[in-house]
Amino acid sequence: MSPTPPRKEPQADAGPDIIYGTHPVEAALRNPNRKVLALWGTRNALNRLQAQNIPLSPVIINPKDLDRRLGSDAVHQGILLEASPLPQPRLDQISREGTVVVLDQITDPHNVGAIFRSCAAFGATALVTTARHSPESSGVLFKAASGAAEFVPFVKVTNLARALEELKSYGFYVAGLEGSAERAIEGAGLAPPLALVLGAEGKGLRRLTRETCDGLFRLDLPGPIKSLNVSNACALALHAVRGRKPRAVET
Amino acid sequence: MSPTPPRKEPQADAGPDIIYGTHPVEAALRNPNRKVLALWGTRNALNRLQAQNIPLSPVIINPKDLDRRLGSDAVHQGILLEASPLPQPRLDQISREGTVVVLDQITDPHNVGAIFRSCAAFGATALVTTARHSPESSGVLFKAASGAAEFVPFVKVTNLARALEELKSYGFYVAGLEGSAERAIEGAGLAPPLALVLGAEGKGLRRLTRETCDGLFRLDLPGPIKSLNVSNACALALHAVRGRKPRAVET
Repeated sequence: MSPTPPRKEPQADAGPDIIYGTHPVEAALRNPNRKVLALWGTRNALNRLQAQNIPLSPVIINPKDLDRRLGSDAVHQGILLEASPLPQPRLDQISREGTVVVLDQITDPHNVGAIFRSCAAFGATALVTTARHSPESSGVLFKAASGAAEFVPFVKVTNLARALEELKSYGFYVAGLEGSAERAIEGAGLAPPLALVLGAEGKGLRRLTRETCDGLFRLDLPGPIKSLNVSNACALALHAVRGRKPRAVET
Repeated sequence: MSPTPPRKEPQADAGPDIIYGTHPVEAALRNPNRKVLALWGTRNALNRLQAQNIPLSPVIINPKDLDRRLGSDAVHQGILLEASPLPQPRLDQISREGTVVVLDQITDPHNVGAIFRSCAAFGATALVTTARHSPESSGVLFKAASGAAEFVPFVKVTNLARALEELKSYGFYVAGLEGSAERAIEGAGLAPPLALVLGAEGKGLRRLTRETCDGLFRLDLPGPIKSLNVSNACALALHAVRGRKPRAVET
């Protein structure tokens, strides 16, 4: 009988991050800011793992043990890591020369994971979410992020409108994305330091969030449907504002 | 006791489409090409429904009946429709003036659903997938497509390389998306009729698919990670080739 990892997934803020799947686990093992607490894997998955200097002895288990642990829907690829959560910077610690993505109550971990990847691919300097109403740093999110969560500082705030005001005080222009906005984000001349704010599908930006934005923008979509999956919208918005030189900001 | 819809979800090619969630059901009810077979809903969900001329009497049920029918993970919003599958055009029937998206063994229904939305938002003329190794027209796909599946012709083919050859014979330029390609798709001057081919994450394009492409292109990503969620990559690729005038094609 092979050993079974503990059943219950701990709360993200209360315990270690639960990370599964080849890419997420490799990226976490390569991240010097992660303290590795436990590594469970099948013999095959551990042999496949491209990571040097694994700081502890992995525990060899059966795929079924992982299914039991994570649920049969989890694409764990035979590997599970428990690691300390990454240190979360404060808003005053993130770069004031880049673009940050701010999520207003987007809870689906597949979407947030995909947004992590786009943030990493476009060099966004941070991802900001509300502490509540956002997915816990769960295995699904890390899997969907495919390692990108190791690269993008993740800031959880308790009050989003206040966080946007704080970003404004550091010189950020706060641009909300809204399908009904008059101005298209393409060609709007937005430049860093910039905060791109996206709301949940269906609900959109909350009223206070919208009112705190410096401006509202839509994506310019030519087809019969004007609404996109939120992670797709985020990728297009990041593309629309990429490569712009930072504005001069008085500090 | 309220009536319970049949438990087993039929295979897409063998039976009706199973469509749940407010947006997907409303869009399907508005689609004159759909034959509605059955509509199940909670009283609240049916009252909320913005659709005229529902062609049959809905069956009123409890949310728990839908949970039992669809699984507790399905965000059914209290409404479930069974409808005839949409007619599938042949490749020789789709417009030769636009861009089609071709998926090489992309199976995740969340991703395919999001891709449907981007196709609708950018006015792509069809979505082409292999008949095997692609998600059945399932409830998850329709939910993720949020109604967009009603707008984009869906072509299932048995042999993808042969389908690409057929598209070429109609004048399509077949552009494969591959992270390791030398040329960036942005600024490559690609113009319709165009087929954008995307492979599954991790696996990428299969060898024969890649060899059948007229050219291979990558997205130009400035950040530390060069890989995106496939639906995000598709949205950016559609954006990169949008608005171009069709090339003259000899027919």
